[in-house]
Amino acid sequence: MSKINRVLIVGGTHGNEITGIYLIKKFERHPDLIQRQNLKIFTLLANPEAYAIAKRYVDTDLNRSFRHQDLGNPHLTGYEAQRAKEIYHTFGTGGTQAADFVIDLHSTTANMGLTIILDHKEPFYLQLAIYLQNRHPHGKILYSRIEGPDRPHLDSICEFGCTIEVGAVAQGILDATLFQQTEKLVQTILDYIETHNQEALQNSKDTLTIYQATHIIDYPRNESGEIRAMVHPQLQFKDYQALNPGDAIFLTFEDEEIFYEGNSIVYPVFINEAAYYEKGIAMCITQKEEVF
Amino acid sequence: MSKINRVLIVGGTHGNEITGIYLIKKFERHPDLIQRQNLKIFTLLANPEAYAIAKRYVDTDLNRSFRHQDLGNPHLTGYEAQRAKEIYHTFGTGGTQAADFVIDLHSTTANMGLTIILDHKEPFYLQLAIYLQNRHPHGKILYSRIEGPDRPHLDSICEFGCTIEVGAVAQGILDATLFQQTEKLVQTILDYIETHNQEALQNSKDTLTIYQATHIIDYPRNESGEIRAMVHPQLQFKDYQALNPGDAIFLTFEDEEIFYEGNSIVYPVFINEAAYYEKGIAMCITQKEEVF
Repeated sequence: MSKINRVLIVGGTHGNEITGIYLIKKFERHPDLIQRQNLKIFTLLANPEAYAIAKRYVDTDLNRSFRHQDLGNPHLTGYEAQRAKEIYHTFGTGGTQAADFVIDLHSTTANMGLTIILDHKEPFYLQLAIYLQNRHPHGKILYSRIEGPDRPHLDSICEFGCTIEVGAVAQGILDATLFQQTEKLVQTILDYIETHNQEALQNSKDTLTIYQATHIIDYPRNESGEIRAMVHPQLQFKDYQALNPGDAIFLTFEDEEIFYEGNSIVYPVFINEAAYYEKGIAMCITQKEEVF
Repeated sequence: MSKINRVLIVGGTHGNEITGIYLIKKFERHPDLIQRQNLKIFTLLANPEAYAIAKRYVDTDLNRSFRHQDLGNPHLTGYEAQRAKEIYHTFGTGGTQAADFVIDLHSTTANMGLTIILDHKEPFYLQLAIYLQNRHPHGKILYSRIEGPDRPHLDSICEFGCTIEVGAVAQGILDATLFQQTEKLVQTILDYIETHNQEALQNSKDTLTIYQATHIIDYPRNESGEIRAMVHPQLQFKDYQALNPGDAIFLTFEDEEIFYEGNSIVYPVFINEAAYYEKGIAMCITQKEEVF
């Protein structure tokens, strides 16, 4: 596999997830923190207009705007659609400052701790995952793709990439502990890439635990589409914990419990993420897998 | 003291604090829940436009729009300024459906549990506070007024009122446990008012613990006004806990600790509230007082 020469670190793809925004500002004040031998590092505040109005997005979700068909569609003229094209034509494959690897920094109101979202299971990624798992033992490796091959996420603009999610943190605030953990995780990813370039990585035989998304569950809703239940207190903040068939998952406003009807133990994530109420997602169901 | 005949319960004064909004919707579906003998109860979704765009406000903070000078100022024509006038002229003192008591439901990203904010220390309020304290032993009584007599808050529109804050909860999400606690607290306030009207209240001799706000502390900022530190991990989520002179309160992005420079033990609240970054408030300092 060829070397990775150029890495793009992105914050503020969502304007109200400010952990990544303040981390990008820190890296821009102290570029030595992200300097690595034989690596050219770029930083990007992806959605400055959304940050200015303290919202996730202005017109549409920037992190759902990178499908090839949308990037090539001249009729999509909203702020994020245009911004996606700019970012792609600058840092995407074939762009004017094309990156080889992109790290996109997010936060979530779900209690997902330190999560790295990967999309591929080639050895390069599995070795990255093991490298991270060994250095951040409380971190989790999530494969979140449910939809088809043309992904809409910013981290798909070039050959390699990943998304970092940290939580639980409310939109619009900084949690110092999660800020520091995110910074360290970025450092570790850069270390991995540098070591990979030096061909100094030994293929690890460690076991890797990953969480593979299978489907999403929406909130129970009434005929008008309005939610009629909340995440059950027993499930709130229980991301990555085993959910058994028959466990309570929702509580209606009238205090009736709704139970999980699956047939096997699963591991929900993105439980009660604020930005997903409008997307029809109360949680994302994953399976826990051991990879050797 | 005269009887309280009409009570207004308000949710959604801030459009992204949805606990109160969904509670108002529940009360409107099930008016029996808030029915009390000899009490007329009204409900109000205060800022529907802000709720529609999932933001705290459209133009200005509605819960800072009720000063008498602003209510009487014809040049204030923003959405919330007009909405404040409508609400005041409907439910305020002398209004077309004037209320005697208003309960305004909020939430906070600070870890304030179940907090009731009162403004006066007349026996009626102190007895209410004791009544609540006995029935919600984990709840807190906060006197938050720092500024002068003309208060800007919605709960000042009629003779009696209070504001409820629950947290920690991220903006835009429902926490089922806090939702249920808020509902029970509203019920308890209505019970108190009903009992007060029946003159069935005995003056309690219980001790009451209150927290009296004294001043606010802003984030450390640079010359451009941008924050240069976060709430210290040791202080995050420690609302209502003792802060000693010399305790760490902030951590700069460069990992330097900043310490509390006061002379005595204080009890911070609204620590790291998302909506207060723009207001220049990192926390509100209170003193703990025992009232007999």
